[in-house]
Amino acid sequence: MKNMDSMVKSATAYLEDAGKLTEEALKKYIPSESSIPASLHSAMRYAIFAGGKRLRPALVKAAYELFGGQPSENIQLAMCSLEMLHTFSLIHDDLPCMDNDDFRRGKPTTHKVYGEATAVLAGDALCIFAFELIARTGNVAVVEELACSLGTKGMIGGQIVDLESEGKTVDLATVDYIHYHKTAALIEASLVTGALLANAEKNDLEHIKEFGNGIGLVFQIVDDILDIEGSKEKLGKDIGSDIKNGKATYPAIVGLEASKQKAMELYNKSLACLDKLQGKDTEALRNIAALIIERTY
Amino acid sequence: MKNMDSMVKSATAYLEDAGKLTEEALKKYIPSESSIPASLHSAMRYAIFAGGKRLRPALVKAAYELFGGQPSENIQLAMCSLEMLHTFSLIHDDLPCMDNDDFRRGKPTTHKVYGEATAVLAGDALCIFAFELIARTGNVAVVEELACSLGTKGMIGGQIVDLESEGKTVDLATVDYIHYHKTAALIEASLVTGALLANAEKNDLEHIKEFGNGIGLVFQIVDDILDIEGSKEKLGKDIGSDIKNGKATYPAIVGLEASKQKAMELYNKSLACLDKLQGKDTEALRNIAALIIERTY
Repeated sequence: MKNMDSMVKSATAYLEDAGKLTEEALKKYIPSESSIPASLHSAMRYAIFAGGKRLRPALVKAAYELFGGQPSENIQLAMCSLEMLHTFSLIHDDLPCMDNDDFRRGKPTTHKVYGEATAVLAGDALCIFAFELIARTGNVAVVEELACSLGTKGMIGGQIVDLESEGKTVDLATVDYIHYHKTAALIEASLVTGALLANAEKNDLEHIKEFGNGIGLVFQIVDDILDIEGSKEKLGKDIGSDIKNGKATYPAIVGLEASKQKAMELYNKSLACLDKLQGKDTEALRNIAALIIERTY
Repeated sequence: MKNMDSMVKSATAYLEDAGKLTEEALKKYIPSESSIPASLHSAMRYAIFAGGKRLRPALVKAAYELFGGQPSENIQLAMCSLEMLHTFSLIHDDLPCMDNDDFRRGKPTTHKVYGEATAVLAGDALCIFAFELIARTGNVAVVEELACSLGTKGMIGGQIVDLESEGKTVDLATVDYIHYHKTAALIEASLVTGALLANAEKNDLEHIKEFGNGIGLVFQIVDDILDIEGSKEKLGKDIGSDIKNGKATYPAIVGLEASKQKAMELYNKSLACLDKLQGKDTEALRNIAALIIERTY
């Protein structure tokens, strides 16, 4: 096994490649800023081209390639779809009535630039456009999978419980609920999307799902930790905002050290899921997993 | 040809039947108010069971039956999906940052009862759930059709131009843009959904699309007229709100009489599209069209 540093380096390169591919495709798919309604297309482009790791498209691509998927229009559609869904959730999450965040990735949030009404509609439009793109793959199972992962039993469910838990003393089960739904669900769905588009077998789908679920939770616990130990410059946002907003986080419940230990346990458990994919090249996913636990931004 | 009164009566009965079927199915599909996240399911149910004509599900059903579709789970899924998409648009439209409406159908709007954050998320969840239900029909062409009708080149496009036109002097072309996109697009999509699920032929799809486009515009012009001449009791909302909010409407641009004339012209033009569907029983759609132009609520 390679050391973590070189794995993180490989993953960073993989994400950069996937990011470039995604951004080129997004530029092609999202109507230009001069296309009517111009303000809406402009807001959508502002939000989605504001940077970001492009982790979800990279996971779509890595899972697709893992199961033998070949370069195609479909994979580009799916990568863009997942990034749009992620951006939709961020725009709505940042609204004054939600987390009321003024900055994201070092830039003013969408509603600060375009106003609240346009931000609500730009989020809506990205969500709807994501379904249009994924429908264009012709794979209706993926549409259903994504909708399930996003709905009240998925991401949106996590968002509401997150909001309702603010400022309250919550137990670990609630934090787990929030993190699994709000964050892990879409990370898992990214992997399942890639796997479904490459016609992965049912058993393998279960393993990749379990990997996504575990590594998705690692991603959010690391996020919680970075909000305490991270660097404002690297993160592009203020640190300490979770404590300030009374957010339900892992460190708030079990402390910093136990949170790190939990992340490491989950990381190892996730890798074990990849071991079950016999005869498959899981290197890209292992590298991305290393990046997720080692990341500083 | 029957007289308008009896056609409206038949259409009212048809909408009542379709409404009952839709409500029964919605109760089955939307998780109960005690199912976690409870507040979200409660808000979704509050918004969707607040009444309403259930026009869109009725159009789905009528188009489906017109092309020989037999009773099935799929048609129930589609009827619920369209009503959810309509309700999603109403919840977000009523938000303080949008039209800032306190009442809808005689009841406090969703954000007045559940707060803004929950209203945003309940709208999101209904939109996403609508895609889950329509995906469950297995018909990916319908998913794509709906997404196109809703996005920036459809309903959401109409909403943003509507908001941006408030208080401004706009021309008829802009009002047409708003009305076609904001209202007619989803009415057209309801008909196309039913037709696609019943495997209508391509030529017939075009005719039904044209009918939906025309009758959808009639629906919105009548809406504009009712905001001036309607009854608060029947409509369940204040009249005169368009003028108060400086909304771009037909009567504001061309006057009340010319608006009525335009509605009648479009109505007749829409009926002519149905004439092209040779050998098909278009009675239900003709009755609904009569209801749309004759309605007082």
